Amino acid sequence: MQTGAARKGVRSDFQKKYSYFPAVGKPVIAAINGPVVGLGLVIALYCDLRWASDSARFSTAFARRGLIAEYGMAWMLPHLVGLPNALDLLLSARTIDAAEALRMGLVNQVFPNDVFLQKVGENARDMASNVSPRSLRVIKQQVYDAMFQTLSEAFETSEREMLASLQSKDFKEGVAHFIEKRAPAFTGR
Amino acid sequence: MQTGAARKGVRSDFQKKYSYFPAVGKPVIAAINGPVVGLGLVIALYCDLRWASDSARFSTAFARRGLIAEYGMAWMLPHLVGLPNALDLLLSARTIDAAEALRMGLVNQVFPNDVFLQKVGENARDMASNVSPRSLRVIKQQVYDAMFQTLSEAFETSEREMLASLQSKDFKEGVAHFIEKRAPAFTGR
Amino acid sequence: MQTGAARKGVRSDFQKKYSYFPAVGKPVIAAINGPVVGLGLVIALYCDLRWASDSARFSTAFARRGLIAEYGMAWMLPHLVGLPNALDLLLSARTIDAAEALRMGLVNQVFPNDVFLQKVGENARDMASNVSPRSLRVIKQQVYDAMFQTLSEAFETSEREMLASLQSKDFKEGVAHFIEKRAPAFTGR
Repeated sequence: MQTGAARKGVRSDFQKKYSYFPAVGKPVIAAINGPVVGLGLVIALYCDLRWASDSARFSTAFARRGLIAEYGMAWMLPHLVGLPNALDLLLSARTIDAAEALRMGLVNQVFPNDVFLQKVGENARDMASNVSPRSLRVIKQQVYDAMFQTLSEAFETSEREMLASLQSKDFKEGVAHFIEKRAPAFTGR
Repeated sequence: MQTGAARKGVRSDFQKKYSYFPAVGKPVIAAINGPVVGLGLVIALYCDLRWASDSARFSTAFARRGLIAEYGMAWMLPHLVGLPNALDLLLSARTIDAAEALRMGLVNQVFPNDVFLQKVGENARDMASNVSPRSLRVIKQQVYDAMFQTLSEAFETSEREMLASLQSKDFKEGVAHFIEKRAPAFTGR
Repeated sequence: MQTGAARKGVRSDFQKKYSYFPAVGKPVIAAINGPVVGLGLVIALYCDLRWASDSARFSTAFARRGLIAEYGMAWMLPHLVGLPNALDLLLSARTIDAAEALRMGLVNQVFPNDVFLQKVGENARDMASNVSPRSLRVIKQQVYDAMFQTLSEAFETSEREMLASLQSKDFKEGVAHFIEKRAPAFTGR
């Protein structure tokens, strides 16, 4: 944890150094166009989405320096890429390219380097314009909390949140713009 | 849960609306040849297998309507496609095609649309004819129960079930037809 | 468990028949150049890395013999390939080739059969020469322990192990050889 003050309503798992991105109420996106190594990779793992250019490179690196899986990476990486890829990346500490990272699920999408920033912008703007900020905030918390819940518990949360969403302004707008065939104007409420 | 009466011997996780497919003693297969969106995707997630035609399309859709991850989807989807793909599908709510769904592991197999029903029939018949119904029933429960067990607990279940299977008629038939080089005639006992 | 004596400091999950590979302090690699079926696949699942030749074939087989998911496979397989692929492999008991095994994440890498042993040797030697044995030992335990921990617990372990690694001879060598642009001479201490 960065400071002595625990953030109320946020589980301690997401109040550690670097592990607090999941507790941020907005999507945290890593746009990766170069080497991501060691601590750099730790930080990328705690982001919600990872978009890479085809010139990106990835390595855990730790084992080649005599170090270990730092900052909770031994827990987080298998949740992102599965146990076999996590062991491969951590034990071999080899460097992989963007195509292999995509195959492993380490990155969500790969774009050619010469249109990378353009594509990142398009995708981020699409999410900022066409998706409800309220939905993003609630869904993000649902997904990360579910990692520590039974299906029953997550199901009951979803029933509660579904009822709440039906009362929201963003739901009203989400239906209205669709019927009126116009761009949405979400307020996040 | 659909009714007030809890089904004995089935954990509550699998007695919710839509989440009861894992408690059905036979494989539940989704054959998908068109758009699967929102609640449609929820239902597909609780199936055991998802076979898609190359004309299938998938979207969580919720976040674009101001809604949230409904009916336990925030728990189930990461178990199917991993955390990064689950966050991508839920936060962006973008539509993906069959090829991307296969890459994510959201569907098990993709067939060309013009032979789709034929391929689905072949695969389903193969499973109905050549696999022991008893084995299907036991294995399906083992896999879903294991989501809530330690390896030790799942291991001990498997030791018990292995002994029981060795006494079964389906095991006798499973060996006999193999040695006699003929099609099996499983009875599910 | 193989014998009556529990191995101290090792969780019971990793003291079962075949499930003890994760408790071995060195990487256990499966080099697979032929059919891996039933119990053979169980053993491969408990290895840390699986390298396959393009002539390898894989099947759980159990359900076609009237058997069940033996030796904890119903727990382990979903952790390796995700729930959908695990259900596919266990319920259909179909045979898959090396390319499909790679797509599922069941194997880490596939090499052409005529250079398979050469490639296995190169990769194993790379790991034996260029990666700290101390790092391998600690990281391997971190990853497998994390399967039974919260992120908080795994994070706290990583903070403790990070401090310990900074005092190690292998860390000193890991930095020295890098700066001196020479091959490392790790001692595992």
